[in-house]
Amino acid sequence: AARCARIARSRPFEVAIVVLIMANGIVLGIETYPDLGAARPVLHGMELAFRLAFVVEIAIRVLAYGRRPQDFFRHGWNVFDFTVTAAIFIPGLHGDSAILRFVRVARVLRLVRFSPGLRTIVAALWRSLPGVAGFLALAAVTFYVYGMAGWLIFGSRYPEQYGDIGRSLLTLFVLLSLETLPDLIEQGLAVSPWTLVYYVSFVMITVNLLLNILIAVIVNSMEE
Amino acid sequence: AARCARIARSRPFEVAIVVLIMANGIVLGIETYPDLGAARPVLHGMELAFRLAFVVEIAIRVLAYGRRPQDFFRHGWNVFDFTVTAAIFIPGLHGDSAILRFVRVARVLRLVRFSPGLRTIVAALWRSLPGVAGFLALAAVTFYVYGMAGWLIFGSRYPEQYGDIGRSLLTLFVLLSLETLPDLIEQGLAVSPWTLVYYVSFVMITVNLLLNILIAVIVNSMEE
Amino acid sequence: AARCARIARSRPFEVAIVVLIMANGIVLGIETYPDLGAARPVLHGMELAFRLAFVVEIAIRVLAYGRRPQDFFRHGWNVFDFTVTAAIFIPGLHGDSAILRFVRVARVLRLVRFSPGLRTIVAALWRSLPGVAGFLALAAVTFYVYGMAGWLIFGSRYPEQYGDIGRSLLTLFVLLSLETLPDLIEQGLAVSPWTLVYYVSFVMITVNLLLNILIAVIVNSMEE
Amino acid sequence: AARCARIARSRPFEVAIVVLIMANGIVLGIETYPDLGAARPVLHGMELAFRLAFVVEIAIRVLAYGRRPQDFFRHGWNVFDFTVTAAIFIPGLHGDSAILRFVRVARVLRLVRFSPGLRTIVAALWRSLPGVAGFLALAAVTFYVYGMAGWLIFGSRYPEQYGDIGRSLLTLFVLLSLETLPDLIEQGLAVSPWTLVYYVSFVMITVNLLLNILIAVIVNSMEE
Ligand code: NA
Ligand code: NA
Repeated sequence: AARCARIARSRPFEVAIVVLIMANGIVLGIETYPDLGAARPVLHGMELAFRLAFVVEIAIRVLAYGRRPQDFFRHGWNVFDFTVTAAIFIPGLHGDSAILRFVRVARVLRLVRFSPGLRTIVAALWRSLPGVAGFLALAAVTFYVYGMAGWLIFGSRYPEQYGDIGRSLLTLFVLLSLETLPDLIEQGLAVSPWTLVYYVSFVMITVNLLLNILIAVIVNSMEE
Repeated sequence: AARCARIARSRPFEVAIVVLIMANGIVLGIETYPDLGAARPVLHGMELAFRLAFVVEIAIRVLAYGRRPQDFFRHGWNVFDFTVTAAIFIPGLHGDSAILRFVRVARVLRLVRFSPGLRTIVAALWRSLPGVAGFLALAAVTFYVYGMAGWLIFGSRYPEQYGDIGRSLLTLFVLLSLETLPDLIEQGLAVSPWTLVYYVSFVMITVNLLLNILIAVIVNSMEE
Repeated sequence: AARCARIARSRPFEVAIVVLIMANGIVLGIETYPDLGAARPVLHGMELAFRLAFVVEIAIRVLAYGRRPQDFFRHGWNVFDFTVTAAIFIPGLHGDSAILRFVRVARVLRLVRFSPGLRTIVAALWRSLPGVAGFLALAAVTFYVYGMAGWLIFGSRYPEQYGDIGRSLLTLFVLLSLETLPDLIEQGLAVSPWTLVYYVSFVMITVNLLLNILIAVIVNSMEE
Repeated sequence: AARCARIARSRPFEVAIVVLIMANGIVLGIETYPDLGAARPVLHGMELAFRLAFVVEIAIRVLAYGRRPQDFFRHGWNVFDFTVTAAIFIPGLHGDSAILRFVRVARVLRLVRFSPGLRTIVAALWRSLPGVAGFLALAAVTFYVYGMAGWLIFGSRYPEQYGDIGRSLLTLFVLLSLETLPDLIEQGLAVSPWTLVYYVSFVMITVNLLLNILIAVIVNSMEE
């Protein structure tokens, strides 16, 4: 156990794991190309080797906790590491199932835990969420009210865009990219000139709220 | 009256109202779907229940003022609450009129008053308006001058976009999304190479003004 | 002269001029609509009345300087006022010439001088120009180098977009709106995979420079 | 040598070189127009004159170092100047080869070294790179994970956009311009409603990261 702890904390061990995760990511990327031919069995063999290596890695890190292996699971990242490594061995998930493929991709996310810089950024972004909750709630109310108003005004004329509250919300979300603004204004003006008030106020309020959210996140992540 | 005041200020009363408003919002959302069949009478019954509940709520809050119920109307939010709750009982607004539907949606806006966070944000945004009035006036003058210039330059050639000052202003507003920039520049260059000066300067000046407005709003809402 | 000076500095005089300029702007706007019929002679009469009123205004303000009317022209805004008011009486500019129409629109810009707030903002924006000159020069060099490189890489294949340095610069300017990015990348990848490096680096460098310019302008206009 | 050093440091020498580089840039720009006719030999002669002038310039600046000409190459910009000036005389690069054309364009970049302002900005942008490395790494991981997930979800249905990891990454990069968002969401919703979660989260995370990067660059370049 003491030896495992020494290994688990050593720099070469960390570097080796980071290199392995990156190599795993590259292999997964190569596997997405359809015409691999003879290379596919090689890649499959490498995938099996990566699995083995990650199991060994987790084993060493669990054993490093000596007689109290349950302490390993006290850290969020450890739980994540264990889950994505162990999920492959769940009997139900054979061969090429969709969940298994996602688990394999999720293993690449483990890179974040090995970089103190990334971990800090992710933690800062996470901590800033409560600070922006008020703006998010206001954005939700704004979307709901404009979605309902859009259904009331345009619902019968443009069922594709405003036929029900779900479509209205989708139309308004896509409008945030400003991509569909010219078309929506043109078709809306055929219904009523108040369309302009509707879209102009919506764009101004939401752009304002989104900028507030983004700046709150940035200020928060800089302070810490 | 004292009992009403105690109820109106109590936490469970507030939570109940917030939950009611949210449930009301969800019911209104479900009602937008066209193929509800047997569920529609149920939803209509719920709508009547919500009306009753909100009337009771307003009654309790008015009675909480005891012998001076007129004080209730001293707060802007109270007036808003009373209006959207009472409007449904105006005789002229029967059944499914358009105004009635808007009033029902407006009831969801009452959520804002129950969240101190939201109320603060809305108040801060509101207070920041005078600070950005100068930029808004400058934006208005800029729009007017570019709209008139656009009519002078492109009016006879592209009546669809620049046929009169109204269309010019609409074209320029939509241009703020940058969506129509490539097409407008291409069609404008067929008229004159000065088109470039026109559009480049317009985009730079307005983007600058809009950013100033947004940053003034944000700075203002952060300070308070 | 003393009386003129008193009038020129009085609040009612200023308010009257501002109202006149705004009314003039509205009349100009109404004149853009093609089907005015009997209203057109009325509007033309109002235009003549505005001309007279502005000549009287300038006369009062020049006379306010007493025996030294040349001092009137020491202030930039006064020169602008005089020019746009007097230009209408230049013999060569008869009837409906294009320059005359622009001069009439330019009169609306005089609103800025009567609002201390607007004057401050315009002056601040103007003063911030030297501070952003470095970024503008860097943007110019960046545009030139990418324009030449675009001509070298894509010129023979896509003469429409990159046929000469003028078209290259226009293509790159429009690309700043990100509108044409998907199409340009798609057609560029048919030439070379380096297209991605070209467009990604161009977008990143210019967005960065533009944001620096805008923030420098904003910071500058806030400090003053 | 002392005389060369005096010349190399003198203001007129610098101004002359800046003017020459700008004139060179204009000549290169004119040469991109296809129908020059009789002007082409003139421009070619000017190109030869520019080459000679730049060789003389470099010679003077090298000689200014007296007995230690190797010190000239200690500064990055000097090496760049020497390379783009000397590259033209490499025997293999005759006539109109592609590399030679790029070298000629690269000579215009030398303008940056002669302006202290530009040099400062470029240096500041360069120094800020380590500060944003963490965000860039996080952006890379985000792109990889979303690219793989996009391939898993949409790969078989939309091979054009998500057929392999390369296409997925390209699709996601272009999506940053928000240009393709409406189409991608529409086609994605035909596969699964989870498409919305995929695109909304991707846009929010990457916009957030990009803004963080840009603001870090700007803050960094302002502090120095
Ligand atoms: Na766009
Ligand atoms: Na767009």
